[in-house]
Amino acid sequence: MQYHVDGDLVPAESATVNVRDRGFQYGDAAFETMRAYGGSIFELDAHLDRLAATCDELSLDHGLADGDLRERIDETHAANDLADAYVKLSITRGIQPGTLTAQPDVDPTVVVIVKPLPRGGVGSTPVWDDHAVVQTTKTRKPAANALPPGAKTHNYLNGILARNELVDGSDEALLRDGDGFVAEGAASNLFFVTDSGLHTPTADLPLLPGITRSAVVDLAREESIPVLQGRYEPSEVREADEVFLTNTTWELRPVATVDGIDVGGGPVTTLLQRRFDALVERRHYGGERLSPGETAADEPSDDSTGE
Amino acid sequence: MQYHVDGDLVPAESATVNVRDRGFQYGDAAFETMRAYGGSIFELDAHLDRLAATCDELSLDHGLADGDLRERIDETHAANDLADAYVKLSITRGIQPGTLTAQPDVDPTVVVIVKPLPRGGVGSTPVWDDHAVVQTTKTRKPAANALPPGAKTHNYLNGILARNELVDGSDEALLRDGDGFVAEGAASNLFFVTDSGLHTPTADLPLLPGITRSAVVDLAREESIPVLQGRYEPSEVREADEVFLTNTTWELRPVATVDGIDVGGGPVTTLLQRRFDALVERRHYGGERLSPGETAADEPSDDSTGE
Repeated sequence: MQYHVDGDLVPAESATVNVRDRGFQYGDAAFETMRAYGGSIFELDAHLDRLAATCDELSLDHGLADGDLRERIDETHAANDLADAYVKLSITRGIQPGTLTAQPDVDPTVVVIVKPLPRGGVGSTPVWDDHAVVQTTKTRKPAANALPPGAKTHNYLNGILARNELVDGSDEALLRDGDGFVAEGAASNLFFVTDSGLHTPTADLPLLPGITRSAVVDLAREESIPVLQGRYEPSEVREADEVFLTNTTWELRPVATVDGIDVGGGPVTTLLQRRFDALVERRHYGGERLSPGETAADEPSDDSTGE
Repeated sequence: MQYHVDGDLVPAESATVNVRDRGFQYGDAAFETMRAYGGSIFELDAHLDRLAATCDELSLDHGLADGDLRERIDETHAANDLADAYVKLSITRGIQPGTLTAQPDVDPTVVVIVKPLPRGGVGSTPVWDDHAVVQTTKTRKPAANALPPGAKTHNYLNGILARNELVDGSDEALLRDGDGFVAEGAASNLFFVTDSGLHTPTADLPLLPGITRSAVVDLAREESIPVLQGRYEPSEVREADEVFLTNTTWELRPVATVDGIDVGGGPVTTLLQRRFDALVERRHYGGERLSPGETAADEPSDDSTGE
């Protein structure tokens, strides 16, 4: 595997940053995790917009055009002959004189790492083996005035500490805000289904509104499923008819249990998974396999519990 | 300059970590910033104890004995022929399979970076040029249930964001907790003096109780100065008779202004600075220059405003 570091393609094992890089010293870096399907990245524009928003939050003026970043991603794909891949692009504030105080003059370090993923789209196999087993954690999300929740940075300890709490068998942490309202998973957004519709925690809470989250909200609206964004207690999630998580690599991942309570997937989750697969198929693989309206009749691609 | 990386001494410019190291990807690393005086580190035992406590908080079981860490520090000093130095020791969770979830089996990455500092002790020149100009920030400290405040980790964005808010002329941010009580500086602990004694925010607030903070509290008690640890509003700091900051490299640094209000040093700050210098002299330079009781008569070493 070859990674892209500071303008050059380098073998993964010798892809390094200096120990004085602020990305290493302080986690002073913005990043995006993306998914390439059939050689192009899902919602690349949205990822680059969010990366720019993160850099704004950090006052990290890296001076690189979006075109330059796209080129580094393309070069990394080409070097590894990857059509379907996980892609993580990071921009750090580089090495600067002094210690903590960020200097306005930035020589950024840009890193692109990739790894192969299975093909997406209609009939695809998800990257996860099983439905998620979710546990509400004592670790809470930092308040928005401590760390901006919409900024995707290399400061990821909050999520790691939440994951550290998981007991055997659990694989995703459900974090609440300081007031006890459910915010998000350590690396995912949360959705649940009740009689009133599809619910997801409001972005007024400290959470990162994911690009897959946004795609799922759009697909639900297209299906005339009411989408409600609110403040919810963990008990409302545990008592839901269906619960699923979203992120860029998982896409939609049904939740088997929350705090030991069975929830599982269901028809709304399956419908939205099919619609998501159809969207990916149409955009990234030429769409010859389906039209969106036909997807509900396809073989389920997500019924992988226990695999 | 030579740094110590993963067991080897390497030139600073080629001292690197792999981009997949969790220290880089997530700031998943513990560290200590230490100060060497005359070839030995001030309160090394306390630093190693706190490093162990941080690793406990992160469930980072690195398997390295304190003796091993001491040896890496000593080798770095010797390679650079440094007696008086800034020393930062970091332990990361290294490279692990998967993404966010930390695995129990750790091959840690240990990094020691150093830079020369002036001699400390009696009559020494502080590392700072001027008294600090302090500004209360909108950025607040994360709550203890989001990020453990006593853990010193490479997740340092909260402090960077606070420093980013500083207007020209200010050089240290004063952060409050979620309720508005003064906690600490971005890279320092806070003290202030009133008629009732020497005050510092209680460690019940989200702050890192520094090793210099602890030394200063001990010295104040030896001088029969009442030490009060409490919850304070910024206005109480602005209206204090004297305000100073502490950290490992600054030692005691008087504060010129808080939010534009003059405060400055004074006799209590000066006395504690002299006592601190005397302590360093006695422990690290053989102590021939003084006995602690004599320090108050020495030439001030801290009156460097405007230099």
